[in-house]
Amino acid sequence: MNSFGKLFRISIFGESHGESVGIVVDGCPAGIPLKLADFNADFSRRRSGAKGTTPRRESDLPRIMSGLFNGHTTGAPILVIFENTSTRPEDYSRLKDIPRPGHADFTAGRKFGGYQDYRGGGHFSGRLTLGLVAAGVIAKKVIGPVEVRATILEAGGNADIEAAIDRAVEARDSIGGIVECRISRVPAGLGEPFFDPVEALISHIVFSIPAIKGIEFGSGFHAAKMTGSEHNDNIISTDGTTETNHAGGINGGITNGNEVLFRVAVKPTSSIHQVQRTMNLRSGRLEELTVEGRHDTCIALRVPVVVEAAAAVVMADLMLQAQQADRVYKK
Amino acid sequence: MNSFGKLFRISIFGESHGESVGIVVDGCPAGIPLKLADFNADFSRRRSGAKGTTPRRESDLPRIMSGLFNGHTTGAPILVIFENTSTRPEDYSRLKDIPRPGHADFTAGRKFGGYQDYRGGGHFSGRLTLGLVAAGVIAKKVIGPVEVRATILEAGGNADIEAAIDRAVEARDSIGGIVECRISRVPAGLGEPFFDPVEALISHIVFSIPAIKGIEFGSGFHAAKMTGSEHNDNIISTDGTTETNHAGGINGGITNGNEVLFRVAVKPTSSIHQVQRTMNLRSGRLEELTVEGRHDTCIALRVPVVVEAAAAVVMADLMLQAQQADRVYKK
Amino acid sequence: MNSFGKLFRISIFGESHGESVGIVVDGCPAGIPLKLADFNADFSRRRSGAKGTTPRRESDLPRIMSGLFNGHTTGAPILVIFENTSTRPEDYSRLKDIPRPGHADFTAGRKFGGYQDYRGGGHFSGRLTLGLVAAGVIAKKVIGPVEVRATILEAGGNADIEAAIDRAVEARDSIGGIVECRISRVPAGLGEPFFDPVEALISHIVFSIPAIKGIEFGSGFHAAKMTGSEHNDNIISTDGTTETNHAGGINGGITNGNEVLFRVAVKPTSSIHQVQRTMNLRSGRLEELTVEGRHDTCIALRVPVVVEAAAAVVMADLMLQAQQADRVYKK
Amino acid sequence: MNSFGKLFRISIFGESHGESVGIVVDGCPAGIPLKLADFNADFSRRRSGAKGTTPRRESDLPRIMSGLFNGHTTGAPILVIFENTSTRPEDYSRLKDIPRPGHADFTAGRKFGGYQDYRGGGHFSGRLTLGLVAAGVIAKKVIGPVEVRATILEAGGNADIEAAIDRAVEARDSIGGIVECRISRVPAGLGEPFFDPVEALISHIVFSIPAIKGIEFGSGFHAAKMTGSEHNDNIISTDGTTETNHAGGINGGITNGNEVLFRVAVKPTSSIHQVQRTMNLRSGRLEELTVEGRHDTCIALRVPVVVEAAAAVVMADLMLQAQQADRVYKK
Repeated sequence: MNSFGKLFRISIFGESHGESVGIVVDGCPAGIPLKLADFNADFSRRRSGAKGTTPRRESDLPRIMSGLFNGHTTGAPILVIFENTSTRPEDYSRLKDIPRPGHADFTAGRKFGGYQDYRGGGHFSGRLTLGLVAAGVIAKKVIGPVEVRATILEAGGNADIEAAIDRAVEARDSIGGIVECRISRVPAGLGEPFFDPVEALISHIVFSIPAIKGIEFGSGFHAAKMTGSEHNDNIISTDGTTETNHAGGINGGITNGNEVLFRVAVKPTSSIHQVQRTMNLRSGRLEELTVEGRHDTCIALRVPVVVEAAAAVVMADLMLQAQQADRVYKK
Repeated sequence: MNSFGKLFRISIFGESHGESVGIVVDGCPAGIPLKLADFNADFSRRRSGAKGTTPRRESDLPRIMSGLFNGHTTGAPILVIFENTSTRPEDYSRLKDIPRPGHADFTAGRKFGGYQDYRGGGHFSGRLTLGLVAAGVIAKKVIGPVEVRATILEAGGNADIEAAIDRAVEARDSIGGIVECRISRVPAGLGEPFFDPVEALISHIVFSIPAIKGIEFGSGFHAAKMTGSEHNDNIISTDGTTETNHAGGINGGITNGNEVLFRVAVKPTSSIHQVQRTMNLRSGRLEELTVEGRHDTCIALRVPVVVEAAAAVVMADLMLQAQQADRVYKK
Repeated sequence: MNSFGKLFRISIFGESHGESVGIVVDGCPAGIPLKLADFNADFSRRRSGAKGTTPRRESDLPRIMSGLFNGHTTGAPILVIFENTSTRPEDYSRLKDIPRPGHADFTAGRKFGGYQDYRGGGHFSGRLTLGLVAAGVIAKKVIGPVEVRATILEAGGNADIEAAIDRAVEARDSIGGIVECRISRVPAGLGEPFFDPVEALISHIVFSIPAIKGIEFGSGFHAAKMTGSEHNDNIISTDGTTETNHAGGINGGITNGNEVLFRVAVKPTSSIHQVQRTMNLRSGRLEELTVEGRHDTCIALRVPVVVEAAAAVVMADLMLQAQQADRVYKK
Repeated sequence: MNSFGKLFRISIFGESHGESVGIVVDGCPAGIPLKLADFNADFSRRRSGAKGTTPRRESDLPRIMSGLFNGHTTGAPILVIFENTSTRPEDYSRLKDIPRPGHADFTAGRKFGGYQDYRGGGHFSGRLTLGLVAAGVIAKKVIGPVEVRATILEAGGNADIEAAIDRAVEARDSIGGIVECRISRVPAGLGEPFFDPVEALISHIVFSIPAIKGIEFGSGFHAAKMTGSEHNDNIISTDGTTETNHAGGINGGITNGNEVLFRVAVKPTSSIHQVQRTMNLRSGRLEELTVEGRHDTCIALRVPVVVEAAAAVVMADLMLQAQQADRVYKK
């Protein structure tokens, strides 16, 4: 459903062209300083406007409607809401009958029986990630010294990302990309066997971000081509520091104290300025479709801050869950 | 923790060299025919003994201790237990102080403060997957016509898998591999936005399988190098059939009725017959370590049936959750 | 935490004198007609103003910020929010140091380390039930023909409720009451053994309503004084109809098709216009305290519609979970 | 479903006359000393044999099948299983068609479509509480200094319990009773607003115990007849100690540091040695039914240790969840 987490629990809501998008953060510890300006840096990284991103200028002004008092979190749920203002009155109703290739138009219709808000992707829109980024800003405060940092490694298979985007814009096409995330100063011992290893939790939330189609930890898919003697990371310190980090900082699903490292594959934006073929569900005839409007050439450009938020939410939850010896009252 | 699923919920337990391993399946519908012989085929696929797998012959004889009556499931929890018999009385206690590279020895110690059962990996052992495979056998019955099928594509980067294993055995080393899974006859509309898309659920449980370090859906990491015009799957039928299947049968996290397709990366077995370096946590000195005993050259060989089980569990849970119009009692 | 339910899941937020109160309803089926006017009847039953209730006139105007499109639910989360307007600028800060007897002032401080929003009870205020009533309005639509109806049976131990309130107002004191709830046209077979029997689910959510201190089903506490031959309900029809209903419509935690019946005990409002003794946590000295302001003489008067909402939420969740034979795809 | 708890999570399974009953305890901290003898005292309190309890002598010998190593818990799930041995080969099949009044025979049939194990109540049997008591033994160790103690206050409305039972045995009837539970040395600050107040959690698990039909905290139903000036507990110490304890140690759903106090109503045993009327579901005709076999005159006699276990499980879960300042890593 639309919630994630156990002790640090987020519940997302909203639609691209409805009244609002936003998130409720439940289980955030009391006493954390929080103000609107804290959101600026991450919102600005997520925002569109740069080359390769949609020219739609969204209103990203958050309102904190609960859980904040005297400049600090109170321990009660924090509601962050963004009212939608940049919606256009254009007619989206044909999306219901003529599903765009690569989009959730068809599947949403099958899931919700035609009652879904189909305008601009509705509840499936990338605009929903605004709430996730807001939760990430709060989560980053909860995890304190632990640092999460994601960057884009390549776009369209090209490390010269700017060149790749120029070429795609010219071709009126879109391109995918690879985003890498590193979490440093992670305490050893996070993660819960058997079904909540760190990889499982991170991948669960990361695949909730639209357009993600793959994830790998440490050497990842390359590990499948390695031998054990190459892949095993020798332990060289009593604190668990390893010589190499093919494991991506995780053994047996539990953090080993080294940097947690993962990469995600972002598919090319589904909306392109080209004629595509699809089925008209009402007439039962194949049609040609041109997706109008504003959209990103390379959505991967806007993904890093969202992946960071997702990883921070997982770390916050795990750090609150961590079984510490002093929490046990042994008889 | 050690449970997974919402309506079809599994809880795993056990240790490699403890009393038992097994699983509790809760939420399985009543009236499904089930007998011990139903487990044979999948257990035999998981079992060791073939070239490239450990010569340890495990007792895989399940006992069903609850939830079964007159040859059918009753709707109450089903406990499947496997008592351990092939354990050896050898001394594993040094693993506590001298963690093996690539294993969970160090992280388990940090997580459980030295109280973990360290014998043969304890609760982190691949033997735990026996319970998961048992749950998979039951899940496959729940999903009926839906079929899940996983196979190994390559080992050590080589599609000639037998040759790859011969070479690794000779080198006294281990190798990784790639496993592909296909789910066919999937109804459209499964998956729950925002945080329970199909990719999230499958990756969550799949990363719980020891040794998995990556997962990708449809074109996966290759999608990051594609353009939108290449990657978008044209819809060519009102039932959602697409011309290509780059999306792996999932749009917006919801099944689109085409085959669900994913691949996982399996790292090389951590146990190898070579001298490795690690830290003696007690003495604080680096030591050389040789891992003795029986182990798999290529654990990926035994992974397909486990991945199938994991995917079947997700499908069972989603099919029980599916919001059907006739389940709504509208005023 | 602040969420309840499995498939029909509600997440509550807000503070009495903060920005807002409200609720997110996740898992509501798509296609249910919903408009603002649907909330009027229940909000008006909950509203204060009648004799025995606080003269504070709250703004109960809901805004639906997501999950609604073309007058129907979409299947996506529904956010209902109430902005607070009737808050007073008075100084509540001394509540932090001088906890009111019977209130959550002391416990909130211990739980949240002094960071809680203490104004008017903050997150512990009865105003939070506004969100629950809103969720109840939606839940009642989901359960269709099933009807939930709660009424007040007595106040201050007196079935002449008006007289009891007159007496309490005169004494500048408050009184408790008993509320009874009946759920009719319930399908047999709802409830989940072992840990989710109907009584467990209803009591869980009902005790979340401020001021509830007891609950009993069917004959309840009186059953403890009965014999089996008196208490057992003879079954007189193949549809499960019983001659009597001492069981309150539930056997073994599962609905039996008869009316579900329970009663709750509501304690007297904690705020009274009398001098009380409490501890000044800052000075460490006992003090006399007079609670100023507007408050209910008998909060039980406003509880029935909240109990109805709670019961409707449970029924909605159980009806969506009901294991129906046609949801099983047997091999 | 058959699980309860968040961080200290129990999963119950089994049937009265099937292979076994038992429980899995997940999330128990590592390092707690545990041996079979630790179960003796509580099992013996639960055991039948005394006057007023069934003469069936159950085998209550637990086997710990996982999660225990070198005499301590390991942090992995603990499976405690009891194999059934005292089952009789008698024919229970007519229970399927002729449901006993007061039992779950009819509702189980409606829920599970006739596939339920109907022998001796199957999964609905009181024998399942054996697993809950086992979990309680472990939970009591987790909560350390906190003490849980339940006793029976009255049977059949009579404080002279022995006399009440003599009379009921003579009448070949059964009687109910009231059980009181007190939890002492409870830290202040446990419980989670809004939906997980302490009363909600305790009542949830307590109503899972067969035969419980009511629960009240502190003054409970009597509070409904009190005034606020009588009911409010004056705070007389900075640690939260109150002069009286009408609140049962809980304000706003959060423990206030005083004794947590609640009472439960236990209905009379449904099985009685008298002729009763019920419906034959197959023939559609009313029939007379005499329930044969061994059963308790007053099941309430065996309930205290089960209620203790339930309360201990809740306390263990809440104490592991407690948000402690030192678990927050503020930036």
